[in-house]
Formats: sequence, structure tokens, C-alpha cells
Amino acid sequence: MQLPSLADIQCAHNRIRPFIHRTPVMTSSQMNSIFGCELFFKCENFQKVGAFKYRGATNAIRCLNDDEKKRGVVTHSSGNHAAALSLAAKMNGVKARIVMPENAPVVKKNAVAGYGADITFCKPTLQSREETTGMIIGETGAVLIHPYNNFNVICGQGTAALELLEDIADLDIVIAPIGGGGLMSGTSTAVKAINDRIKVIGAEPLNANDAWQSFTTGRLVPSNNPKTVADGLLTSLCELTFSIIRKNVDEILTITEESIIECMLLVWERMKIIIEPSSATVLAVIKENPDKFRGRKTGLMISGGNVDFRKLPFSQQV
Amino acid sequence: MQLPSLADIQCAHNRIRPFIHRTPVMTSSQMNSIFGCELFFKCENFQKVGAFKYRGATNAIRCLNDDEKKRGVVTHSSGNHAAALSLAAKMNGVKARIVMPENAPVVKKNAVAGYGADITFCKPTLQSREETTGMIIGETGAVLIHPYNNFNVICGQGTAALELLEDIADLDIVIAPIGGGGLMSGTSTAVKAINDRIKVIGAEPLNANDAWQSFTTGRLVPSNNPKTVADGLLTSLCELTFSIIRKNVDEILTITEESIIECMLLVWERMKIIIEPSSATVLAVIKENPDKFRGRKTGLMISGGNVDFRKLPFSQQV
Repeated sequence: MQLPSLADIQCAHNRIRPFIHRTPVMTSSQMNSIFGCELFFKCENFQKVGAFKYRGATNAIRCLNDDEKKRGVVTHSSGNHAAALSLAAKMNGVKARIVMPENAPVVKKNAVAGYGADITFCKPTLQSREETTGMIIGETGAVLIHPYNNFNVICGQGTAALELLEDIADLDIVIAPIGGGGLMSGTSTAVKAINDRIKVIGAEPLNANDAWQSFTTGRLVPSNNPKTVADGLLTSLCELTFSIIRKNVDEILTITEESIIECMLLVWERMKIIIEPSSATVLAVIKENPDKFRGRKTGLMISGGNVDFRKLPFSQQV
Repeated sequence: MQLPSLADIQCAHNRIRPFIHRTPVMTSSQMNSIFGCELFFKCENFQKVGAFKYRGATNAIRCLNDDEKKRGVVTHSSGNHAAALSLAAKMNGVKARIVMPENAPVVKKNAVAGYGADITFCKPTLQSREETTGMIIGETGAVLIHPYNNFNVICGQGTAALELLEDIADLDIVIAPIGGGGLMSGTSTAVKAINDRIKVIGAEPLNANDAWQSFTTGRLVPSNNPKTVADGLLTSLCELTFSIIRKNVDEILTITEESIIECMLLVWERMKIIIEPSSATVLAVIKENPDKFRGRKTGLMISGGNVDFRKLPFSQQV
């Protein structure tokens, strides 16, 4: 199994730079004073389609050869990767086919359809997703672009950390959320290769702690029907992301649903930026473990900002 | 009646620059394509206390002489000016007394109390506010810092437009919301003095259209129990702001509640920044009058980002 190197991520950055946003690194003296450390928010909520996923999807599409481009791409996802792949395909004249569970939120169906992708609905099970995807590949020859079990996708995701370290060189710690492990694989590879004294910490909901279990026991444990407000972190590690994470990540810390919601609300209120629950996990880790971070310069990978404003986790008193 | 000049606003800028945030001017190719013009968002939602009000409050406080500083300041407000004056006073070692209606939202009471201001509650009528304020002035000698009927406050508010034109010199149009008229007075004075070919347009809710009425009839019409989701725009013009606006503003356009809410949601969804309903009025003006703006470079004064997330105007399906 070939693991990505820093050079692979740098190549990906050169490849995708003209097509992505260079997202800002935001700071807030108020947040620093609340948490007692120096925080640097890498704002991928401002990335195209509102999530870091556009980096990996763009890199994967730009790596296709002419024959593959003609055949088009396919993935199964109801979330940010579906939107990212659809737009990246459209921008490069490639046909995208997206397999979505029939119960996916209407806003997400509309977003993907709006980018011109073909949607095929399936039952909301992993088995049905994979069967439907396999069927489409059989019929069309489309190239599968998996959300994270894909070398080029991981290299693309790693470019966000490259930019963060270009902007803020002397970080002590970098925290990224862990779902399927694509962002963390790219992030940890880039960070450790640039400066192995920077501590890399994963943030994972306690209610979806398959990566924590895998990391702790040393063998890949799939998640079992996880329920968390962090809807981007429901997926399980694969062999590829698990291998990278075991090699590069120093620690995985789990956090409660209450901390995730509280930290999401805090960022909305104090920083006036919209982050999704998955992004709030990185701040929740600091909230639950203040001693580990006190006085430290900490980079936070803010993964995305796609939220259904009609279904907020804050209590409604209307 | 002395009206502020560009030089007054430039002096204010020099005075307050070390104490305020230089807020970013944001752009969005997606929004440009939706509205068919080039939009430049001056993001005062990222200002301290989450609103442009911190500029005027800071300028007013920094203009006090030593005797006035000792006596402290007082204002009546339940909104952003109360928070802004409280923090600006605290940062300058001045005592602030705030008169708030007893039915003000708990979050706003907490914010003001958190900045160390003394709060006096009154009945939720203009008469009770003014009487209570007068009583405090009589007892303490505190200096009244009115939210907008104040020369130094208006000069401070004008500094946001100065910065916008420093960053984007060749605008065709600038739009600002109109409540009491403080932001628009400062904005229009600065813009017209710098380049009188830039059109200055006011945005006002149809449901609180006292400025539109005053502007159209040529005499000051107070608002009569207005009801709008744009809670920062419930106040009426005063003689000072009316005079400035008559002199400098080209047009006032009113917009519906539906447009305000739709445009607020659009900014949240597409730009991932939190703006309050009052800020969304400037975009709503474009939405309701597309022909006036097509192809034009338009600056939008985003006044603030203070929202009670438990009472959002979007329909809740939880």
C-alpha cells in the first residue's frame, strides 16, 4: 500500500491551486482568552462548496487521463464529497454520477443536482450504496472517486494543512476532525513531514469513536450505526487512512455531543462565521482538555460550513 | 447645526484606528452571478462587539475631556450601541450607564453586563427611556452618548466607508441601511466627499419606512410603532441625521420582510458568514431592483452580525 508523501501533497497543491480558494486563517482574541491558548482557524468553510472536500475532488479529477475523463466519475455520498465531486467534475467537463440514499436531505439533493450531476437513489445502507455504485461502474465504466479511500483525494485534502503552515509556521499543535480519515491523513502527512515537533491530534465524537478504537487497539474497527450531530464524521476509517493515521497522528481525543454543539454556537456567536458541527469538534477537544493546550499555538482545521438552518441543534424557543 | 465633513471623519479614523478592527471587504463569485453585479461586502459583522457601532462609540469616548471621563457616559439602547458603548467605555477606563427596556432580550442584558456597565431598566417606551436617562444625567452628571444624534458618533461610523473606498476605489454605488441614520450619515458624507459620482443608496424596511417618508416629503416623519425583523432599524431619523441624509443620499429604497429574510439566509448559506437582518437589507435592495445594479460595482455596508440563534426567522422544522 503506497502512502502519500509531502511531495505528493505539494504536487497536488500545484495542480489544484488555480481552481480552489486560498482560504483565510482567522484569529480571535476573544476565543484565545476563553480557551487560554493561541488559536489559528484554517477556514475551509470558505472553500468552494463550503468544505475542504473540494480540494481532494479537484485533485482526483485533474489526475484522470483522457480516457477516464470520457467515462466520467461516480461516488456514493450524501454529503460534502458529493457536492464537491459534482462541481469539480462540472468545472472540468467530466460527467459525474452520484449515488445518494433516498432519505438524503432535499437541500443536499438539490445542491448536487444544481451542479449538473446525475443522481441515482439507493436504500440508506452501505450495502445498497456499494451495490448501486458497482452497477453504475459496470454499465458506464465510470471511475470511482471514493470520498477518502483514494490516494489522490487524500493528497488534495493535505493541501489545506500546507497552506496553514505556510501562513503560520511556528504552530505547536494541529487538530483535525476524523471521519473516514481523508482530511486527517493529508493533514498529518503534511504537518509531520514539514515539522515533526508539531503535535497532531485527531478530534472524534465519542458517539462515533471508531477511529479512537482502531487507534487504541491497533486494529481497524468499523463504526457501528453511530449517532452524532457531526454528520460529516459518521464514516469509518479504511485500511489506507488507518495506516497513515497510525503512522503520523500523536493522539485521538473524543468529545461529547454537548461540547460539539456548545463550541459550534460559540464560534457562530463570537466569530460570526458559520461552521458545521463536524468542524466544531476540533474546538471541543480544547474545551474538554484545557491543560493540553494552555499557552500553545494551535491550528484548527475548520472542515466545512454546510448546515441546514431549518434544523439547528440549538434549542428553539420560537 | 454643524454637519460632519470628510476631514472630521478622517480625524476620527486616526483617533480610533488602534482600537478597532480593520474589517475585511469580502467578495463572492457566486453572489455576483446570482445578482448580476459585482458586490463588495464591508464586513462590520467582524467589528468588535459584532457591529459598526463600536466605531462611533469609541470615537465619542476618545473625544471626552478629563472631566467628562470622570463623570462617565450614559445612553439608552437595547441593541448594538449599548454593547459598543459599554465595551468602549471599559477599554478607556470610563464608567458606562445603560438604560434598557425591561423586556430587552436576556442575551443583550448579559452582553452589556458582561462589559461591566451599570444597567438601569425602564418601561419599553421612548418616554420612559428618555426620562430614566435624564434622571441619571441629573444624578451623576454622566455625558449622554446618543446612538446617532451625536456628531462624534456619526464621524466614527463614517470610518467604515473610508476603509471600503481605500480598499475598492472604483465603486459605482454604495448601499447602507438606515435606522436612526448614524451609519448612513457617516457613510454618505465620506463617499460623496471622496467621489461624488458614486451613487449612495439607503436601504430601509418597508415596515419601518420613516426615513423614506421623510426623504420623500422633505419633512421629518417619526416612525410609528414599526414592526420589522430588522431589529436594528426600528429607530427614527433625528434633525441631524435627516439633514445629512437629505444632502448626500441619492435615493432610499424600501424592501419587504420576505426579501430581508431571504437575503439573510442566502448570505449565511453561500458566504458562510453571520449577518443580522438589518445587514441583509442592503442585499434585499438589489434583489428587489436588479435593473438599477446590473453590471455595477456595488459596496454593501454589512452593519452587524448579532443574532439570537434560538429565535431565527427561518421556518423551523425540528
